Amino acid sequence: MKIVIDAMGGDNAPKAHVAGAMAAVRSFKDIEIALVGDEPKIREHLTKAENISVLHTEEKIEDEDTPTQAVRRKKNASMVLSVREVREGRADACISSGNTGALMTAGLLHVGRIDGIERPALAPMLPTIDGEGFLLLDVGANVDAKPEHLLQNAYMGSVYMENVKKVQRPKVGLVNVGTEDGKGNELTKAAFTLLQEAPVHFVGNVEARDLLNGVCDVAVCDGFSGNLVLKSIEGTAGTLFSILKQELTSSFTNKIAAGMLRSSFMNIKEKMSYSHYGGAGLFGLKAPVIKAHGSSDHTAVYHAIRQARQMVHEHVTEVISEEVRKQEE
Amino acid sequence: MKIVIDAMGGDNAPKAHVAGAMAAVRSFKDIEIALVGDEPKIREHLTKAENISVLHTEEKIEDEDTPTQAVRRKKNASMVLSVREVREGRADACISSGNTGALMTAGLLHVGRIDGIERPALAPMLPTIDGEGFLLLDVGANVDAKPEHLLQNAYMGSVYMENVKKVQRPKVGLVNVGTEDGKGNELTKAAFTLLQEAPVHFVGNVEARDLLNGVCDVAVCDGFSGNLVLKSIEGTAGTLFSILKQELTSSFTNKIAAGMLRSSFMNIKEKMSYSHYGGAGLFGLKAPVIKAHGSSDHTAVYHAIRQARQMVHEHVTEVISEEVRKQEE
Repeated sequence: MKIVIDAMGGDNAPKAHVAGAMAAVRSFKDIEIALVGDEPKIREHLTKAENISVLHTEEKIEDEDTPTQAVRRKKNASMVLSVREVREGRADACISSGNTGALMTAGLLHVGRIDGIERPALAPMLPTIDGEGFLLLDVGANVDAKPEHLLQNAYMGSVYMENVKKVQRPKVGLVNVGTEDGKGNELTKAAFTLLQEAPVHFVGNVEARDLLNGVCDVAVCDGFSGNLVLKSIEGTAGTLFSILKQELTSSFTNKIAAGMLRSSFMNIKEKMSYSHYGGAGLFGLKAPVIKAHGSSDHTAVYHAIRQARQMVHEHVTEVISEEVRKQEE
Repeated sequence: MKIVIDAMGGDNAPKAHVAGAMAAVRSFKDIEIALVGDEPKIREHLTKAENISVLHTEEKIEDEDTPTQAVRRKKNASMVLSVREVREGRADACISSGNTGALMTAGLLHVGRIDGIERPALAPMLPTIDGEGFLLLDVGANVDAKPEHLLQNAYMGSVYMENVKKVQRPKVGLVNVGTEDGKGNELTKAAFTLLQEAPVHFVGNVEARDLLNGVCDVAVCDGFSGNLVLKSIEGTAGTLFSILKQELTSSFTNKIAAGMLRSSFMNIKEKMSYSHYGGAGLFGLKAPVIKAHGSSDHTAVYHAIRQARQMVHEHVTEVISEEVRKQEE
């Protein structure tokens, strides 16, 4: 199995990507990795190259670039070349921590949608108190969703959680403004009816405030809402950590007390960390395309590779494809 | 000026409401308060009754009640009677910490909309790092909003922040999936164009993750999105505080260290607390109707009264009404 990595995207490129790749080939004997990007810069960090190849290019897509333009114009960008390796059958899955919109565009354009999937969904795992995490989809691939798209999100999310995360009968919740049946806007009311009749383990409406408590395994929503939920959670956690840090270093006594609590704070940070959950899958494409967080360190890259490997291994794309065909009949 | 309070709604009724009312009449010599609810239960806590009257009723709306049914059937519920006091001119503003949906229904039915306002908006203040707070509207009154409704939310929010919170040229942000112009779903793209031409200080798109940093004074969105943002923020903060508590009491050493940091933790909790911001105004009605948090304590009730007084004092309803009329011309 071959996994291709855009080594130039994200805040810690290419160092984190090279280190993550080296750790992954040590753990998983059945994978080969291709790192795409500036070869000299990559080689700087590449101390063991067994099962790792490098595909050189100097062009890259920046975070500020307009997605569609960038993908069309920068034909040799590390991200575009990575996606192309998959399209042309030279790799089974691809990972990038670069510009999210550009990756979605490149994925749609070059890898293409699974037949029957109208709109791909971007699906990150988020932490829960019990450490199991939940899948939130969509968080921005499809900001004007129709009820049928939410239904497809439920299928895709269930297949992923069942096959990759090994959750039996994953609980699917519809993100809504209240838990009672009949709540919501036009979109969620219509989606509710579809989900009730769908062959997924639908647990009804769920509220955003209960997501981190693990109220469901798959939280379904449109891309606009999901993006707001994701960023509200990230923003609130970030703000609280920064207020906490400020308070804990505000006096000598506080610093001492904080020192005593160091391992506890590390536990909390670890609990809220995304890095061991892997990246956000772009579900609905013909091959696994994974968006790793822009601030991914080598651990996050390692886990994104682990996740890509698992997705290929469990034929997630094929299972989704099969599921959609069954539904259409 | 007379302010009427539904003394039976919320977790701490009627004790918090009576205590909040007594504190308010001590602070503000120009107000009278009517407490509506079970008179014997209210009198139990009412140690000083100067400028406070009681309107007795035994009926109340429960949190589980279906809003429309409850308001129609329980004609003598404390909440319904409170709203009616306003409608019939015996009071200038009303406050309840009971069932949100029921209060919106009662407000619409009995107080009525300002001419020209198509849809009222529920508008809580949320905390920011700098302690100034921001107004988020709508958080659920209007879950299927049109672009014009978002524009009206911007007017109403600006009028409130300028007149009640005394913020000069309040910064209005459109809650969106990215900060760049042209981002968003159909609704926000259309609202963006309207806001650019509106006589408010529009600062463009804002992301949910930046709200707590105070990126704007008025955050405009549809009721569905706002509800998700509000509950994601509340849920994340709640989850983090509970993980923190668990960690800090997990060993003897931790308890000691946590004891040393007690005042810091209190500072953080205070910073993130809603209680001194008052309740969520139901903007767009013909008189101030305020939804206080269901878990309001006497401080929160006190601040909701302060807020209602300020809204009456500054003629917020009339200013909004005037503003809307100007826009229509």
